Amino acid sequence: MADFENCVSCSSSPLELFERVTAQGEKVRSLKAGKASTDEIDAAVKLLLSLKVNYKTATGQDYKAGSPPVDFSPISNNGPTTIQDEDFVDPWTVQTSNAKGVDYDKLIVRFGSSKIDKELINRIERITGKTPHHFLRRGIFFSHRDMNQILDAYENKKPFYLYTGRGPSSEAMHVGHLIPFIFTKWLQEVFNVPLVIQLTDDEKYLWKDLTIQKACEYAIENAKDIIACGFDINKTFIFSDLDYLGMSSGFYKNVVKIQKHVTFNQVKGIFGFTDSDCIGKISFPAIQAAPSFSSSFPQIFKDKKDIQCLIPCAIDQDPYFRMTRDVAPRIGYLKPALLHSIFFPALQGAQTKMSASDPNSSIFLTDTPKQIKTKINKHAFSGGKDTIEEHRKYGGNCEVDVSYMYLTFFVEDDDKLEKMKQVRNQLKDHYYLSFHGEGPSYNQDLLFQPPHGRYPWYNAISSLSKGFSILVQPCE
Amino acid sequence: MADFENCVSCSSSPLELFERVTAQGEKVRSLKAGKASTDEIDAAVKLLLSLKVNYKTATGQDYKAGSPPVDFSPISNNGPTTIQDEDFVDPWTVQTSNAKGVDYDKLIVRFGSSKIDKELINRIERITGKTPHHFLRRGIFFSHRDMNQILDAYENKKPFYLYTGRGPSSEAMHVGHLIPFIFTKWLQEVFNVPLVIQLTDDEKYLWKDLTIQKACEYAIENAKDIIACGFDINKTFIFSDLDYLGMSSGFYKNVVKIQKHVTFNQVKGIFGFTDSDCIGKISFPAIQAAPSFSSSFPQIFKDKKDIQCLIPCAIDQDPYFRMTRDVAPRIGYLKPALLHSIFFPALQGAQTKMSASDPNSSIFLTDTPKQIKTKINKHAFSGGKDTIEEHRKYGGNCEVDVSYMYLTFFVEDDDKLEKMKQVRNQLKDHYYLSFHGEGPSYNQDLLFQPPHGRYPWYNAISSLSKGFSILVQPCE
Repeated sequence: MADFENCVSCSSSPLELFERVTAQGEKVRSLKAGKASTDEIDAAVKLLLSLKVNYKTATGQDYKAGSPPVDFSPISNNGPTTIQDEDFVDPWTVQTSNAKGVDYDKLIVRFGSSKIDKELINRIERITGKTPHHFLRRGIFFSHRDMNQILDAYENKKPFYLYTGRGPSSEAMHVGHLIPFIFTKWLQEVFNVPLVIQLTDDEKYLWKDLTIQKACEYAIENAKDIIACGFDINKTFIFSDLDYLGMSSGFYKNVVKIQKHVTFNQVKGIFGFTDSDCIGKISFPAIQAAPSFSSSFPQIFKDKKDIQCLIPCAIDQDPYFRMTRDVAPRIGYLKPALLHSIFFPALQGAQTKMSASDPNSSIFLTDTPKQIKTKINKHAFSGGKDTIEEHRKYGGNCEVDVSYMYLTFFVEDDDKLEKMKQVRNQLKDHYYLSFHGEGPSYNQDLLFQPPHGRYPWYNAISSLSKGFSILVQPCE
Repeated sequence: MADFENCVSCSSSPLELFERVTAQGEKVRSLKAGKASTDEIDAAVKLLLSLKVNYKTATGQDYKAGSPPVDFSPISNNGPTTIQDEDFVDPWTVQTSNAKGVDYDKLIVRFGSSKIDKELINRIERITGKTPHHFLRRGIFFSHRDMNQILDAYENKKPFYLYTGRGPSSEAMHVGHLIPFIFTKWLQEVFNVPLVIQLTDDEKYLWKDLTIQKACEYAIENAKDIIACGFDINKTFIFSDLDYLGMSSGFYKNVVKIQKHVTFNQVKGIFGFTDSDCIGKISFPAIQAAPSFSSSFPQIFKDKKDIQCLIPCAIDQDPYFRMTRDVAPRIGYLKPALLHSIFFPALQGAQTKMSASDPNSSIFLTDTPKQIKTKINKHAFSGGKDTIEEHRKYGGNCEVDVSYMYLTFFVEDDDKLEKMKQVRNQLKDHYYLSFHGEGPSYNQDLLFQPPHGRYPWYNAISSLSKGFSILVQPCE
């Protein structure tokens, strides 16, 4: 397995692994044809077999000559009842039977990414001189691709930029949506770099029963919540696809470049598309891929086409960027680096992620404190026992307790969090969480000057943007 | 077949026919379930069977419940040797075994379009007060969809606009490419309407082994040839997709709308795409469809979304617009009307169309008179006999004579043409054609003001645009 460990650490994609098996197979054939020594052939065959094992470990499929890994990406369970411990993760669905949530170590192996280990966290601390964010310390951002390359660049004073996004599927964002933004804000702060934020209103129009107009409206509403996170107003560009594609001289050209280098077979494998899917869905992955390349933003990066991109996102978005990384070298661009977060659990438990399309699973940024309290009390899966008496006698279980999970996301102070855990588990008392839907208003200029003047909706946003704060408080 | 004739005249698409069969099938089922009278059921079944016959006639396929007509469009021959008289026509290939060219009457039946008959030509003459263009008189534009709707609109003083285009696959256009432009210029003149001309440089990048930059360069070179046709400078907008998508607030929104309403199954059926095709090709038909809707050009039509479009094009482009017409009502837009031309024959004969990718089959607008003469003498398929003696004895055959075919395109005067035919056929003497590659230069402003200022390449074109003229002269 040494080879595969090696592979994972160099972040080989399934396609790269496939190509290595193919190349090694050809080598074996040519050795045999050239009547090489038995030893030489044996060694080559041994390596071939080990590469095939690596390929199967990474993709869950046997290597088949001539059939690239089309089905490697969504980790699908083989029917709902067969394999209990398999998790389903794709950009639209997260589902596991485990109350503690998805098995993220397995996900790293299957996706072929690398774990964010102590060494990497220490390096970030050393280079930036800042205490690592609690999302790093607690494994909330747990996986990466090529983060060391980004740190090398930073040490060598080479520029890079951040890219994250949001699919505006509802008027209000929920607290789970904040995770990548909170972390991205920290990254922007410690590395002092530009940031682009894509609002995929086109995606939501294509996937949901929405009009174009509604999707645009959601994008504007969501932009307000994002602006409220407080990004650097001079280094942040928020855009809606439906708007920006019609005002950028670089974006569509990159979309077409990407679309030329990805086949239907590939997106079928990666995203599970079928022949009955609309051609908009089928070609959309290129739209989410394009912001990974600096030439999509000539108004920001001018003619610099080799500025590396770092993408903080929830791991369910990784399939888009595995595709992007496969394409990048073929169109002369750098592969984007990635930082992956775990999912934010639904109120009902960590078996699935919080989802805006299910209001009962979610706490929205527009919910009032009273609404939030009711939701927590009514829906939040509890690690406590059924009665106060039993709970006092046997203690609670923070590992499955949704309120406690939320605390791990939002209580920055490690000591305070540990104390809360003790209270919950050992002192055997109730402790809940409440979010507070109000806060300071951000009226700031969060958009770079777009190529042809301001966004039509920019003025609306700048004067209307909402704000929010998250309060952690005991629940009576 | 009355029903089908009726269908053709109302321009039902295969999808519409499919839906009518499905609806009638449901009616039969509900009549049977409701124990209706035998007479009633028999009548419904009879209509169902006749609708199925119409469907098969239009698509070449048996009706199959739940399977919309995915393969109806490209008229494919079943293998190269089986059916001699079947023609192959799709947007990329035209091939027939008949020296007289494709059987256009059959094409009308298969595509489900309508013949441009004497009555329609008379109506055009009556309404416009102009002698119909010789392309109409000679059946070079031979087929249409909803042209009467356009004439109704014109009579009622309702606006409409023209849309045509060019895939810039080579630096120089050939004379065959001029046919839709020459006719469009005439339409613009007699109806005095706006015109948009799409240069699908994105398509050529996706289909050919071209860089984005090369495709853009070809678009510029081709624009010069198109400008040289002499369109109304105040009513013509020429655009490159790779440029215009990044500067229009309306175009991409329409592209996404179309892409949401077309499945991979449909484009597979219409264009013959496979799973190995890149997602750029698969989604491209929406890009060619978008200019059919006036809201793709807010800088021209402002917020008017109901201006009807008339598309003059060679009939091989019809699959794009059959798809467009299927989609239009579902996204709240008017179906574009169409005027279809026959193909311009290759030098080697009417079995295939003139193609820019085969220089020996084509006369380019940049060819010198000497080059043209050599090409005609060397490559043009002749209806004459092998020797002068035999020719004088038996006469020639203008029906397969490529030089004579070209004369029918370019000699406007009917009497002069008839005389040339007599000379060729009966006076049994040689008569050839030569094109002349020089002519007046057009430096005119052929672009509407784009939404955000001039095209970057506009100035280059306006000062560089070439010109050409076509001379018909005897060949010694």
